Amino acid sequence: MKQSLGAKTLIYPTPVLVVGSYHAAGRPNVMTAAWGGIACSKPPCVSVSLRAATATHGNIIARKAFTISLPSGAQAAAADYFGLVSGRDADKFAATGLTPVAAEFVDAPCVAEFPLVVECEVVQVHELGLHTQFIGEIKDVKIDEDCLDADGHIDVGKLDPIAHAFEAGGYFALGALIGPALSIGKAFIAKVSS
Amino acid sequence: MKQSLGAKTLIYPTPVLVVGSYHAAGRPNVMTAAWGGIACSKPPCVSVSLRAATATHGNIIARKAFTISLPSGAQAAAADYFGLVSGRDADKFAATGLTPVAAEFVDAPCVAEFPLVVECEVVQVHELGLHTQFIGEIKDVKIDEDCLDADGHIDVGKLDPIAHAFEAGGYFALGALIGPALSIGKAFIAKVSS
Repeated sequence: MKQSLGAKTLIYPTPVLVVGSYHAAGRPNVMTAAWGGIACSKPPCVSVSLRAATATHGNIIARKAFTISLPSGAQAAAADYFGLVSGRDADKFAATGLTPVAAEFVDAPCVAEFPLVVECEVVQVHELGLHTQFIGEIKDVKIDEDCLDADGHIDVGKLDPIAHAFEAGGYFALGALIGPALSIGKAFIAKVSS
Repeated sequence: MKQSLGAKTLIYPTPVLVVGSYHAAGRPNVMTAAWGGIACSKPPCVSVSLRAATATHGNIIARKAFTISLPSGAQAAAADYFGLVSGRDADKFAATGLTPVAAEFVDAPCVAEFPLVVECEVVQVHELGLHTQFIGEIKDVKIDEDCLDADGHIDVGKLDPIAHAFEAGGYFALGALIGPALSIGKAFIAKVSS
């Protein structure tokens, strides 16, 4: 039996997107957003939605670029802090001891210590209401070499990505592997054919 | 030291969005998508990106509505199957033994057995390239009563949402709670003030 919760923003999980941008004077800033994800395969694009009141919103409008740095579990507290205060009032890199590094292909900074960074150029901007949705074409993805295995594949255990679960406690590590995508569902195809 | 992986669609984690829609003749269909998430708080909106080649894309264009049903871990194989075959060729509900149920507020079906369903009315459509991004205003969210605790709060352990991690093995359960959002970062505010 289902119960209505009303018209709420509940999708599980949401990502922990640390969005990097430059202030007008060139000072690097980061903020954490949960509203976004991959939006297109060709060209590869991400979406991230921000309120117009945020410093990052204005920064991205001005420079048409942003990065997304993904924290590992041990960096969750820093990522949480990035969502608690405005870059207008604080130097968030200084406060956390983390290091801004310029992206290679776009006009935005990323977090050097975070294991995966995505460099994005703004290609579309959509006004949805309280949030503006930025579509960023992915120009490059960079990963810490120690998150790759001997064959150059991503080792998710070493990457240790985190997920956000609203109204359910906060940040979570990924847990047990359930099974491979585009594979564990084949049992149902066999069932139909037999 | 970071290594470039090129311009790829890598964000961790991605959600497992089972998108419900009606075919022209009224037959219910579902497909699984990973490109999407929450897009706006007011009005509450989700985004989901689909290739024009999918049956679901045409269904949503025609009816201006879709649902998102979120599977629990035990339902991951069915969700995976929903992404493996086209609704043009198969009755995916019959193949999995799952039950379509009409949404209350929008013209689309959802999966009765999945613990959380989100009813969406299309408010914007964005052509991004290979994928079309549908913005759906959330009209209602429904949850299985046995996923709520005695106080009516979501029990994430009972909900058992799953995450998708591309190039990292497939579907994952949520693991250990790292800490509460908008809370564990406060340590850095104290550090600055002291």
